Amino acid sequence: MTRVAVDAMGGDRAPAEIVKGAVKAQSLGCAITLVGQKGAIEEQLAACNASVSPNLSIFHVENVVAMDESPAAVVRSRRESSLSVALEMVKSGDADAAVSAGNSGAVMGLAMRTLGRIKGIERPAIATVFPILGGGETVLLDAGANVDCSPENLLQFALMGNEFARGVLGVRQPRVAILSIGEESSKGNLVTKEAATLLGSADLKFIGNIEGGRLFSGDADVIVCDGFVGNVTLKVAEGTAEFVQSVLAREFRASPLRMLLGRWSKPVFAALKQRTDYDQYGGAPLLGVNGVAIISHGRSNANAIYNAIREADEAAKHNVVCRISAAVGG
Amino acid sequence: MTRVAVDAMGGDRAPAEIVKGAVKAQSLGCAITLVGQKGAIEEQLAACNASVSPNLSIFHVENVVAMDESPAAVVRSRRESSLSVALEMVKSGDADAAVSAGNSGAVMGLAMRTLGRIKGIERPAIATVFPILGGGETVLLDAGANVDCSPENLLQFALMGNEFARGVLGVRQPRVAILSIGEESSKGNLVTKEAATLLGSADLKFIGNIEGGRLFSGDADVIVCDGFVGNVTLKVAEGTAEFVQSVLAREFRASPLRMLLGRWSKPVFAALKQRTDYDQYGGAPLLGVNGVAIISHGRSNANAIYNAIREADEAAKHNVVCRISAAVGG
Repeated sequence: MTRVAVDAMGGDRAPAEIVKGAVKAQSLGCAITLVGQKGAIEEQLAACNASVSPNLSIFHVENVVAMDESPAAVVRSRRESSLSVALEMVKSGDADAAVSAGNSGAVMGLAMRTLGRIKGIERPAIATVFPILGGGETVLLDAGANVDCSPENLLQFALMGNEFARGVLGVRQPRVAILSIGEESSKGNLVTKEAATLLGSADLKFIGNIEGGRLFSGDADVIVCDGFVGNVTLKVAEGTAEFVQSVLAREFRASPLRMLLGRWSKPVFAALKQRTDYDQYGGAPLLGVNGVAIISHGRSNANAIYNAIREADEAAKHNVVCRISAAVGG
Repeated sequence: MTRVAVDAMGGDRAPAEIVKGAVKAQSLGCAITLVGQKGAIEEQLAACNASVSPNLSIFHVENVVAMDESPAAVVRSRRESSLSVALEMVKSGDADAAVSAGNSGAVMGLAMRTLGRIKGIERPAIATVFPILGGGETVLLDAGANVDCSPENLLQFALMGNEFARGVLGVRQPRVAILSIGEESSKGNLVTKEAATLLGSADLKFIGNIEGGRLFSGDADVIVCDGFVGNVTLKVAEGTAEFVQSVLAREFRASPLRMLLGRWSKPVFAALKQRTDYDQYGGAPLLGVNGVAIISHGRSNANAIYNAIREADEAAKHNVVCRISAAVGG
């Protein structure tokens, strides 16, 4: 049974939504430890008519990392906090995975310091899973951990994404692509062009470049890029999806008849929102560190936390860390 | 009266859609010259019950640049083509602007060689105008002309975008931002961080970084980034808008009731498509060359060409080239 340590105090809506998500995640069959202020957590458990059990425990830690603290200062201070303890539990083997919706720079920094890097990985990367049109999922990395990357970094991202897709997404032979500005190998910037050569000679099913327009096409299982491009890409996609839905909502208010149609079509909009909402994709695994660490969105609600715990469970069960270690080490 | 030279043979749907767009654009009150194979153009004019007139003429050129020719080879060959002649007309003063939906690498390369750069501009950039939520427009550059950029390039893009927004979009004091991965000035890659310092001391209303999620917010009038990031951004936005609309269409087919609702809601979808479709934003001006050149999407239909001609007319009327020259020259 997977043991997941959840930072109960991290996130804009902590601890309420975090606790609620953990209560829901009991159905996954893993053992969850809520790390944070005992009193506050118990209060939230009571609010959702739940209580501690063999599979839902509390580990009291008084201190909390604030959402707006400088990540560098948090890492330097070596202060005990709900976040640092959740990660220490993974390090010590008391947990198989950690989940936090807290200050994402601090989660990343502390995870790297506490867990250390997998041998052969120069830079851990944030992986993000998103839905594709025909069903199924694609993983993109790096989603923002490393803004300036070398071609070698991109190769390591590809190897890590490949193991993640095999282990967690269940793709036997993932198709790996580089996010670029044209399908031809001659298209790209200095880093992507060199990376293409490296990926081409690696033990990967490298399919070449993929353009931004084909992100949701399902043509690739793993898409690699530097953290600057990855972060812009994901935020643009999020912003565009919101934009389109706002225009739609506005158009459905343009006349009394349209308002009526809009009201009747509510289940459609709900389904659309569900297909495009971040909270279905609860968290982003930090790949390349020696342990499973899932970074959730600061805005995470209970559903997002539930999904993050599910991801943590999957990554631990499928030994993603060992797989990556084997792929880069040997 | 603005004189616009239109490459009648460039584009996936040339000459039919190009000619149709030009016929429609006569209403704009500019004088249009269709450059290309006379016979083919006349045939298309007849197909839309139009004919040459003082404001709609044909300039016969036999040769055509194929969509898949190597842009470098096209530029090197110095061969006469409908594209090269349209640009030469701008160079010689026989036209005030050129429009082409042809091979965009060739359009860019030939425009640079034929028109030359404005003094003080190291790298011309492709500007793209897109809609924002509350109405109005934002211009983003570079959309793909220069994949690897220096901070100085970004500063020049900002100055050019500023003049374009003032001249063509009619914004008195454009708010200029750098596309980056966080609002704080400490966030970004090596190039954007240095560019922020340069833009901060330039004669611009620089508002700092803007994240990808706020692309359509209207918080900035001009957004600058390197051509790699810009191209990925625009394609991701296009792909996401298509993705959301595909999910929506699928949901509206999920049951007989929903299909009925979907049928009644058709005007809503048409309005949505219109708000998000590229063909409302007919072309991307290549800023920084000594003349107005509009690069249209290869897939351009008549409506896109109409809008590209409208943009060419606006850019010429508002002296965007002189404005940029004055802004960078001092």
